[in-house]
Amino acid sequence: MRRIVLKIEYKGKNYCGWQKQKNAKTVQETLEKAIEKIINEQVKLIGSGRTDTYVSAKGQIAHFDTKSNLNLLNIKNGVNSCLINEDISIIDIFEKDQNFDARKSAKRKTYEYKMYVSSSKSPLREDLYLHLKKMPDVSKMNEAAKLIIGEKDFKCFCASNTSVKGTVRTIYSAFFEVKDDEIIFTICGSGFLYNMVRIIVGTLLDIGYLKLTKDDLVKIIESKNRNNASKTVAAKGLCLKSVEYGD
Amino acid sequence: MRRIVLKIEYKGKNYCGWQKQKNAKTVQETLEKAIEKIINEQVKLIGSGRTDTYVSAKGQIAHFDTKSNLNLLNIKNGVNSCLINEDISIIDIFEKDQNFDARKSAKRKTYEYKMYVSSSKSPLREDLYLHLKKMPDVSKMNEAAKLIIGEKDFKCFCASNTSVKGTVRTIYSAFFEVKDDEIIFTICGSGFLYNMVRIIVGTLLDIGYLKLTKDDLVKIIESKNRNNASKTVAAKGLCLKSVEYGD
Repeated sequence: MRRIVLKIEYKGKNYCGWQKQKNAKTVQETLEKAIEKIINEQVKLIGSGRTDTYVSAKGQIAHFDTKSNLNLLNIKNGVNSCLINEDISIIDIFEKDQNFDARKSAKRKTYEYKMYVSSSKSPLREDLYLHLKKMPDVSKMNEAAKLIIGEKDFKCFCASNTSVKGTVRTIYSAFFEVKDDEIIFTICGSGFLYNMVRIIVGTLLDIGYLKLTKDDLVKIIESKNRNNASKTVAAKGLCLKSVEYGD
Repeated sequence: MRRIVLKIEYKGKNYCGWQKQKNAKTVQETLEKAIEKIINEQVKLIGSGRTDTYVSAKGQIAHFDTKSNLNLLNIKNGVNSCLINEDISIIDIFEKDQNFDARKSAKRKTYEYKMYVSSSKSPLREDLYLHLKKMPDVSKMNEAAKLIIGEKDFKCFCASNTSVKGTVRTIYSAFFEVKDDEIIFTICGSGFLYNMVRIIVGTLLDIGYLKLTKDDLVKIIESKNRNNASKTVAAKGLCLKSVEYGD
């Protein structure tokens, strides 16, 4: 069996997230069907992790096993031609040994959350950005972002309707950058809980709008209670930028 | 009568261009209807110029006259709330005297044409960029772009199915910039003929792919024959960035 690894870009808008489910169009299933058409075999595509409805990816990683002898470029081009009317594209393809697992071997993930600040909606950015009407205090948000770096129990930033075993994760970096009327948040961590990035952005924005302080953030994290953190911001601004495997 | 001037952003994908027409949804008509709802008056919205189906704008300028006493901010916010489900937004609003005319007073227009270079489609950019599979020689394209600067008869770059009187226009600047895997063409001129920017980009790309030379470009311009220029590139990469009035 060959283990084929894909680097995938997709626009989340028209899919009910990554994960296959009944009666809904998902990225995983759409890709699986396209791969099956090309290699004439049933496949099980394992992603590095799920992404929600409306969440996009520039560098989602997934693998599948196959007996097919088709060369990598033919698989990539063949699958992409099946995806011509979809918002999904294989942007790179590799072959790895069976020790590599797109989900289990992932060491770090980097997400990006994009916002623009304007009194009016920006139709050219509406699909992929959160619209903020006023500029928050980004330097305050960056000071606060430093407080989430490290190995911590992030239960406060985990959607309460999930049953995950451990809620300890390591955040390696988290910062906001301002360019013209745009604010981009980039966060890199060992892994992320359900809705974690979007709850973190919501909470840091409340600090930027002076509704919360850095001290409040410390207390929120210590409380391990999702109800103490701020609201989950819209999914459309979120993009899985890259997954690192340290190989 | 008050003359109200709007700066408008729109994503062209879901509209049959700017210009009102029967049995088609256009930016002009969608905006007019929204304005009429807010000021309770019939209006005639005059844009700086037409844009084609799929062409976007960051800074289209248009004016209309009204007897309404509503203040500018209320007009802007009211109209924008009527456009909540549209890809159109008023991003600025002014009041000018009757000497100002969005079309006739326009001195310069700047268009941007965006491309990305990748062996695979990039779903996150597909709406607003032309996809190139190979990197062209951008320095050759920039050398050639200098040859279109100045006051010239640009008949060779005008779609042949149009009946425009004069085909002389002045190009003030035209250049390509490369950033990572993206190429952005910016062109500023006194005005543009039908499809002019898209035919220029197509022709300069042929120079970048070594299908044509700088000398060929000189001959194409001199020929004043659209058939000698290259193909019109896709509308989706084009965006009207700004209109200048020199006031």
